[in-house]
Amino acid sequence: MTTSDRARPRKPRADGERRRASILREAASLATVTGLDGLTIGGLAAATGMSKSGLYAHFGSKEELQLATVAQARRVFDAEVFGPASAAQPGVPRLVALCEAFFAHVEGGTFPGGCFFVGAALEMGTRPGPVRDSIAAFQDELGAVMATAVAAAVERGELSQDEDPQVLAFELNALLVGADAAFVLRGDPAVLEVARAVVRRRLTSPD
Amino acid sequence: MTTSDRARPRKPRADGERRRASILREAASLATVTGLDGLTIGGLAAATGMSKSGLYAHFGSKEELQLATVAQARRVFDAEVFGPASAAQPGVPRLVALCEAFFAHVEGGTFPGGCFFVGAALEMGTRPGPVRDSIAAFQDELGAVMATAVAAAVERGELSQDEDPQVLAFELNALLVGADAAFVLRGDPAVLEVARAVVRRRLTSPD
Repeated sequence: MTTSDRARPRKPRADGERRRASILREAASLATVTGLDGLTIGGLAAATGMSKSGLYAHFGSKEELQLATVAQARRVFDAEVFGPASAAQPGVPRLVALCEAFFAHVEGGTFPGGCFFVGAALEMGTRPGPVRDSIAAFQDELGAVMATAVAAAVERGELSQDEDPQVLAFELNALLVGADAAFVLRGDPAVLEVARAVVRRRLTSPD
Repeated sequence: MTTSDRARPRKPRADGERRRASILREAASLATVTGLDGLTIGGLAAATGMSKSGLYAHFGSKEELQLATVAQARRVFDAEVFGPASAAQPGVPRLVALCEAFFAHVEGGTFPGGCFFVGAALEMGTRPGPVRDSIAAFQDELGAVMATAVAAAVERGELSQDEDPQVLAFELNALLVGADAAFVLRGDPAVLEVARAVVRRRLTSPD
């Protein structure tokens, strides 16, 4: 792939897109360490070795940079978490796959500060505006994916009829957030093993 | 109390301690918005209206300021969460009291960015050193308080013999962290109602 890419004559537009994607990968990583608000055109210039004026050409303002960074983090989450989950059967298998993929995403160190969206949720709560809204929209979607899978699990008899999809979605989400925070603080994979066991037990119908 | 305090001649040392405590309350609040790493002597000088040299007299370095801020946040957590929990009976009542006190602490808006220690855990994971260690020590203690209460609940027959104190402590802690993150993002008390219901159901032995 890389070889044939290199053999092809590059188009300026494709080059620009590649550079933009590479800057945004760096920005998303950096944001998990400094916070999204700590992400400035100047700071990103220092981290990428690009000029501030070059970065201004890609992102007109700090807010545009932040929103593009959230969109990039979302693409990573799609690829590493939502993708594997949607490949699993609806119901409990999908819930388990989603949680497992999340733990693998955190453990694999895609971002140095753990899940981008956990840090962003905490940070952006005190900073109303379009960036906070984009984080809340992501959380809504994650909650909806989980609640839909819980509803499917109930319908298929994999979980008790008493399960409230919204409530179990909250519970599972909390296990992901709690595992992320504990793993980021300690760097100890044993934390994620405990979280995996809790998820599996919680999703086993006691019958 | 305040009146009699005022009537008494102030001692310079007591004045200094009062001022230090007031600075640290501001520092702990600010840290839940800017992060502990965003807490600088300069930033705190701007927030408190004190001179930088005056703050240097209280805290010799940024790290000393951060450690003193963690200690202050710990005193607040003692007063608002550990205190009410230790007043409850050992076992399930203590676990419920601890979780309820935590939710009230978050909902009451003691700090604008929610639980100080949740934000600090995420932030400090990528910043090894004494400040991170002090956050990890707090988390160890919270986990131990919870695990001890779970063990007491099992011994009293309030929870199943199958409960692993460490695992249930992890689960409960995750519910606190997840509720904090969701409440900080949305500011919606309904989130905490869901968390309260989940905690109560989780701690009701199915018999």
